[in-house]
Amino acid sequence: MSGDEATETSSERADKVFGLAIQVLIVLSVVAFSIETLPNLSSSSKRLLRYFEWFTVSIFTVEYLVRVVLAKNKIAFVTSFFGVVDLLSILPFYLSMGLDLRSIRILRILRLFRILKLARYTKALDRFARAIAIAREELAIYLVLTFFVIYLSAVGIYFCEHQAQPENFRSVFHCLWWAVVTLTTVGYGDIYPITIGGRIFTFLVLLAGLGIVSVPAGMIATALSEARADERDR
Amino acid sequence: MSGDEATETSSERADKVFGLAIQVLIVLSVVAFSIETLPNLSSSSKRLLRYFEWFTVSIFTVEYLVRVVLAKNKIAFVTSFFGVVDLLSILPFYLSMGLDLRSIRILRILRLFRILKLARYTKALDRFARAIAIAREELAIYLVLTFFVIYLSAVGIYFCEHQAQPENFRSVFHCLWWAVVTLTTVGYGDIYPITIGGRIFTFLVLLAGLGIVSVPAGMIATALSEARADERDR
Amino acid sequence: MSGDEATETSSERADKVFGLAIQVLIVLSVVAFSIETLPNLSSSSKRLLRYFEWFTVSIFTVEYLVRVVLAKNKIAFVTSFFGVVDLLSILPFYLSMGLDLRSIRILRILRLFRILKLARYTKALDRFARAIAIAREELAIYLVLTFFVIYLSAVGIYFCEHQAQPENFRSVFHCLWWAVVTLTTVGYGDIYPITIGGRIFTFLVLLAGLGIVSVPAGMIATALSEARADERDR
Amino acid sequence: MSGDEATETSSERADKVFGLAIQVLIVLSVVAFSIETLPNLSSSSKRLLRYFEWFTVSIFTVEYLVRVVLAKNKIAFVTSFFGVVDLLSILPFYLSMGLDLRSIRILRILRLFRILKLARYTKALDRFARAIAIAREELAIYLVLTFFVIYLSAVGIYFCEHQAQPENFRSVFHCLWWAVVTLTTVGYGDIYPITIGGRIFTFLVLLAGLGIVSVPAGMIATALSEARADERDR
Repeated sequence: MSGDEATETSSERADKVFGLAIQVLIVLSVVAFSIETLPNLSSSSKRLLRYFEWFTVSIFTVEYLVRVVLAKNKIAFVTSFFGVVDLLSILPFYLSMGLDLRSIRILRILRLFRILKLARYTKALDRFARAIAIAREELAIYLVLTFFVIYLSAVGIYFCEHQAQPENFRSVFHCLWWAVVTLTTVGYGDIYPITIGGRIFTFLVLLAGLGIVSVPAGMIATALSEARADERDR
Repeated sequence: MSGDEATETSSERADKVFGLAIQVLIVLSVVAFSIETLPNLSSSSKRLLRYFEWFTVSIFTVEYLVRVVLAKNKIAFVTSFFGVVDLLSILPFYLSMGLDLRSIRILRILRLFRILKLARYTKALDRFARAIAIAREELAIYLVLTFFVIYLSAVGIYFCEHQAQPENFRSVFHCLWWAVVTLTTVGYGDIYPITIGGRIFTFLVLLAGLGIVSVPAGMIATALSEARADERDR
Repeated sequence: MSGDEATETSSERADKVFGLAIQVLIVLSVVAFSIETLPNLSSSSKRLLRYFEWFTVSIFTVEYLVRVVLAKNKIAFVTSFFGVVDLLSILPFYLSMGLDLRSIRILRILRLFRILKLARYTKALDRFARAIAIAREELAIYLVLTFFVIYLSAVGIYFCEHQAQPENFRSVFHCLWWAVVTLTTVGYGDIYPITIGGRIFTFLVLLAGLGIVSVPAGMIATALSEARADERDR
Repeated sequence: MSGDEATETSSERADKVFGLAIQVLIVLSVVAFSIETLPNLSSSSKRLLRYFEWFTVSIFTVEYLVRVVLAKNKIAFVTSFFGVVDLLSILPFYLSMGLDLRSIRILRILRLFRILKLARYTKALDRFARAIAIAREELAIYLVLTFFVIYLSAVGIYFCEHQAQPENFRSVFHCLWWAVVTLTTVGYGDIYPITIGGRIFTFLVLLAGLGIVSVPAGMIATALSEARADERDR
């Protein structure tokens, strides 16, 4: 019995080491993806990145095939969330072989799906998904409210500022950008009211709107702590 | 009895479908309103928008008349919140027919009242109104405090910065704009202190003021969750 | 007995009306103070503002004298918070009569103390003062922490950015301004890091610092709700 | 017995006075460090600062030696956190004597470790360390989530804006800076989206991201209040 346990433990340890190695590879592959976007890369760096890409895809392909072979219900695995993610993270590479160069650039972004493979190993993302599930209904309601406030703010500022700044506040759609940047308090400063009416309106909108736009964020935080409490109870 | 229930259900279903159709029409009419503000619209687009406006107003007029006819107490309905909103959302169209062109532009904004018609169908807005009712008294008190802090900040920065930047910090009224943008942490960057005194004052104001300006927002959030708890209890 | 009560009520009503009238006068006097800071005032407006100032000071002087005469303990009233505020809000006017013009401009700001007279009539400010008293000790501790974080951020960014932007990040004192604007998330955009090191440092500082700088604000909010609960219990 | 107590109290008082004097010296030495970074210092100011540095280091050296001598377990003290900090705050001075001028500039920053000596006297920092210890595991998880959100935002904005603004959104690494500044709502305004796609993406990212980036800050605040409650119970 203790022998069985020892075997189990050593097999578990191998599993952990393998999982960690895959995680490191995913992160490295994502970093490589970011480096590829750097301008003025030397051709030797580009070659190195290509070799690394071949290596990564090989490992991920082997991992995918092993998972398919080991799965009891092969169709269930292939159509599961992680089955699709695993496939999507290697598919762009194979597809890009049979296509002309320009399409490759667009397909490259699909490689980023690999980062979702990390979710398999991350308890935090799992908990986050459960938190979203807990607050789903309320989040939907408040998102509607948020859209409401942002839209009305955009219309209001349009009528206050369009005359004074026809270029910046060109249409209600351009004002939506102002409303988003202002009500989230980001405030880039690329577009802001200059008339007295527009500034008073901004003040009123901020007083009323901050309480609405910041509520969904608070609700996710609360749901996360509920999800955490649930885990402790189990 | 089961026949009655079936009839009721099917009538309820018709109600729901009708309600949903009206909601979609309201949203489309608001989107059309936004598109009209776009500059450089082709004349064919303008014609299309005008036709759509005629169609929308017809439906809303029919809806309004049906509601008046079906209402048990007609005067109570016409003077109720939604009765007034329903009327305001079609009135601008009919008024603009007998007036010259320039007035129409101003009246157009009244059409936006249609978005308030959505409130009839949205539980979230209802809950929001109740939350405001719960926290009404306290919100009033803290709004006074907020005005207090913003005003004193404006006066303070006026005396710190007026000499150094006579254009940006021209009067206490111009400084109020700075106080609003700074204490809500939006920080557009169109106006900021450059003297040492003004910067130290800004630091002190932010330390003291953030706790006051952000309180009303937090109170709305708390009242919303109370309103939600009330609903669950019932 | 009911006659006594009626008399009391009517005297209370007179008190309320008088109090409200004084409050309105305070607000108007503060508004007048703000208008005086507007550039390009016509001489007739200036004259009007001067007349209004004379009227305001007369009323406040009478109010002050009445309060002194009616006070049971005259010295206690004169040295009390509101006694000092009442005196400070009329003193600048009388002092400015015997002095040359330049000093008057500086003394004018003292007139703003009148706004503190409002505190006598505002329950909110009273509650706010009690909230500060509840959280006094903890606020002091976290203010120290806030200064700590802001200072260390300033030193860090100085060493990251001084070489690249010697003008903007001239000394640790100039960097303190950056630290205040960044950690409160105001972000005017007048000064920001451009080196990779400075940007990574900013990210780390924001991750760690937001939790500290926002705590005093949260504590005031909590203390305010405690003060409110205390009131309800009584 | 009461005599013993009196002696103890007077020795405690001496301890307190000595502690306070050291704290004041630490703060002054940090202020001196900041003044040294000011450009255009007169040579007499520089000399004064050098003399003050000599004085400070002497006192700190004596303090360090006394602590080593009085420590029951000398090795334990020297390798303890405060032992190392005490040494680091005087070492740069002695090292810089035997080295050429350029290294001194870099070593100077080590002097700032002195500010950590304040931690010995500050209960707040102690509580803060305990708060971090309470929330350690959860903070680690959410920091991972924060990195996740910031990275995905950076990649998303890269694909939305790279074509329109190849200079500002040059690579995924440059976009990371945008993601940090936006999701913390600092919003300097040095880099922001201008395409419709980029702006819609920013809106979605802010809606989803604010709930994640602000969670660690909230958790530190909660842990701090738990640490405070623990203290009260003891």
